[in-house]
Amino acid sequence: MTIDTKLSPLYTDMYQITMGQAYFMNNRHEKRACFDYFFRKIPYGGGYVVFAGLGDLIKIISELQFDDDDIYFLRQNGFHNSFLEYLKGFSFRGDISGMKEGEIVFPNEPILRVEGNMLEVQLIETLLLNMLNFQSLIATKASRIRLSAGERQLSDFGLRRAQGTGGIQASRASIIGGFDSTSNVYAAMRNGVPASGTMAHSFIESYEDELAAFRSYASVFPDNCILLLDTYSTLKSGLPNAIKVAKELEAKGYRLKGVRLDSGDLAYISKRVRSALDRAGLEYVKIVVSNQLDEYVIKSLVEQGAPVDIFGVGTSMIIGRPDGAIDGVYKLSAFDGEPKLKISENIQKTTMPGRKKVLRYLNSENYFYADCIASFDEIRPGRMIHPFQKEKSLDLGDNSFEDLFTDHLREGRMLYKPSGPFEIRERVYRRLEQLPVEHKRFDFPHIYKVGLSEELVKLRDGMVQKLQEYL
Amino acid sequence: MTIDTKLSPLYTDMYQITMGQAYFMNNRHEKRACFDYFFRKIPYGGGYVVFAGLGDLIKIISELQFDDDDIYFLRQNGFHNSFLEYLKGFSFRGDISGMKEGEIVFPNEPILRVEGNMLEVQLIETLLLNMLNFQSLIATKASRIRLSAGERQLSDFGLRRAQGTGGIQASRASIIGGFDSTSNVYAAMRNGVPASGTMAHSFIESYEDELAAFRSYASVFPDNCILLLDTYSTLKSGLPNAIKVAKELEAKGYRLKGVRLDSGDLAYISKRVRSALDRAGLEYVKIVVSNQLDEYVIKSLVEQGAPVDIFGVGTSMIIGRPDGAIDGVYKLSAFDGEPKLKISENIQKTTMPGRKKVLRYLNSENYFYADCIASFDEIRPGRMIHPFQKEKSLDLGDNSFEDLFTDHLREGRMLYKPSGPFEIRERVYRRLEQLPVEHKRFDFPHIYKVGLSEELVKLRDGMVQKLQEYL
Repeated sequence: MTIDTKLSPLYTDMYQITMGQAYFMNNRHEKRACFDYFFRKIPYGGGYVVFAGLGDLIKIISELQFDDDDIYFLRQNGFHNSFLEYLKGFSFRGDISGMKEGEIVFPNEPILRVEGNMLEVQLIETLLLNMLNFQSLIATKASRIRLSAGERQLSDFGLRRAQGTGGIQASRASIIGGFDSTSNVYAAMRNGVPASGTMAHSFIESYEDELAAFRSYASVFPDNCILLLDTYSTLKSGLPNAIKVAKELEAKGYRLKGVRLDSGDLAYISKRVRSALDRAGLEYVKIVVSNQLDEYVIKSLVEQGAPVDIFGVGTSMIIGRPDGAIDGVYKLSAFDGEPKLKISENIQKTTMPGRKKVLRYLNSENYFYADCIASFDEIRPGRMIHPFQKEKSLDLGDNSFEDLFTDHLREGRMLYKPSGPFEIRERVYRRLEQLPVEHKRFDFPHIYKVGLSEELVKLRDGMVQKLQEYL
Repeated sequence: MTIDTKLSPLYTDMYQITMGQAYFMNNRHEKRACFDYFFRKIPYGGGYVVFAGLGDLIKIISELQFDDDDIYFLRQNGFHNSFLEYLKGFSFRGDISGMKEGEIVFPNEPILRVEGNMLEVQLIETLLLNMLNFQSLIATKASRIRLSAGERQLSDFGLRRAQGTGGIQASRASIIGGFDSTSNVYAAMRNGVPASGTMAHSFIESYEDELAAFRSYASVFPDNCILLLDTYSTLKSGLPNAIKVAKELEAKGYRLKGVRLDSGDLAYISKRVRSALDRAGLEYVKIVVSNQLDEYVIKSLVEQGAPVDIFGVGTSMIIGRPDGAIDGVYKLSAFDGEPKLKISENIQKTTMPGRKKVLRYLNSENYFYADCIASFDEIRPGRMIHPFQKEKSLDLGDNSFEDLFTDHLREGRMLYKPSGPFEIRERVYRRLEQLPVEHKRFDFPHIYKVGLSEELVKLRDGMVQKLQEYL
């Protein structure tokens, strides 16, 4: 069994460790620092992101330790003995607060706030970005596919086209976003979700003919048999043979579970197959389709009335096509009690200083109205300002609000048992119901409003001005 | 330390195991079968693919075993006791032959031939596709970036945007394709390649000013110091401070190793930085650039004469943008001594029957001329036919040829020690020199000729005809 939930602290960028040594040798490593995790651009041209990966991340961080191999490798790479002795006793003792896994999140708002000594919060940067960026990318894709599929079942068929072992984490994220099962047996075991699978063309080809192959499979799985119809010809061969086998199963007191279509025009063929099955009294037999599906193809199939019960989705979901990555970053916001920021010729890349939190305002019907980024100790900003266009502001009126930040890890200890992927999926579904529909459409979705409190803008502008004077 | 080179046999699609039980219960599991691995479409609109992932795959397959957790999970999922007893003693005892890792390969030609009993060759399908499709995708991307970068150094900076733990395999593949080092410390340790890293903006922000940060870092790494220039302003602040620190290092007998540029117009800024360094007598200080690089940006920087020594490449390489996947497939070609094929309404998806190999013809100057797919026992086809347009054929003349197939695994045992990524990179470089330049250009590359021997076409056409009569 792979131990991908127990990673080495060397699963990071080299500069985290060289900086660690520089902090250590200059005796700055135990100064307290605060970092924000956020992203700038929503993938898929969409209107929201599903935040995912936190459960895996928290577990890995809380168990992070250097073993002998790790220390040996660093020694070979010229690190100082005193620093290596320090690393031998390392564990993460910092605090992580922020959004819950499964929250609906938007660009530029802090999703997590990581605090601890400078060495430890820097060391976990790469791991954190790697886990959160990717699982959020995939959970968001899965959620879009769920929007298209309605109540129909969705199964992850992606492992063969996944980016290496990343397929394991993608499979978890697909459940969080809205999938029901996975073909990846290892991921099913690791994540506690159902594994699903039927048969391949090779199974059928290996028999003298298709009917013999169907009968052979049905004899072994009489109560869990899904027959693949398109090895030779779906309508001329696969379909009549499947009906024959379904009738034979009925005679033995069983019911054929389903048929799978993997090529051709899936709208046309699924209708032909459905009506033939129904004419044969096989209304209970489900239709599974696969082959290059994504949220657009599924939307189109549903709109055409294709009688599909289960969609098997591969490549497009498992790699988050076409974006393939979320541009999440991890930026210093305070050090040794002082707020910090990075300025940039591009105002959109200037970071937000200080310890912060995010308040979500809800309108009278309990829909999301706007998110306001505020300094940690603010109570309830009444107005917020656009992050980059100061002339734009929004009166937050008498809307109610929620503080989206909760504590996940304190002094390195997990504060709760992480939820399973299906529990997190429930949160996604609940929260998506509160997101107005115009943010959920695929084409040019309405942009959800995220702004800064007046107090935070004042802090940022003052710091920018001081830095510019210094230059 | 993660054990991503020792994966569970459950790292597969569920249908491989349900089919396995069906074969087992029908006593067909020990019949001998032969599968081909090939792909249909070159990613990035390119003219070739670099075959990668084989070393990892062979190692994993040769150690594949079900442990108690695996068997327990399958039992919970309703598999038969007798089948589970069989799996407890499972190991892969089949044969794998084909191209060497690092070979330059083309669409539709078999890259590997996997033979063994039906159960074992089916069980490894998903693992094989997962490892080979992804590493070939990334090695091909890295190779394109190498073509643009010429002799300049290339470093993988991608882990934070990688698809989860797939970043580990991507890092290996990047070396195979042409990279020199990685920022991913774990991948460096696992793959035996250099880890490289400098400093982040946060390091500089954490100090009272930039100069203090530079001095602090240089005091700890006087002989291995690369300073990041763009935290406040590259030209107004970072550059003069770096020159000051370089001079201070010189006074102590050290040399500043380099400076890194991570924003702005990299062509313009790198020239300004180079000439300022040179004027200060710091000709030896190297310039590292990063920020959204890919083969096109690097080509443009080189064409503009940007004085860059080292490129750090992240997202675009580590996820193989924009494709993100290669469509490699694994198709049955023989079972129990009989050739097999799958027909399709789309002739391009009809598979090629029987045990096969690939012969590469070389012209008189030792350049690749054409690849001919032949039946296993053919000596030297003199003519080859287009895979899908039978009216097109090519006289192979008196060109010399190489048999591209060698044995990798026999009866489950590795026949040689897998090469390290740098050795494989040497093969890539050598073989790319033999590929005519028109197949290497980025825009509309010339299509390399891959065809079938006349004998193989005859076998395929005869089988297609027989199957069509049956329908």
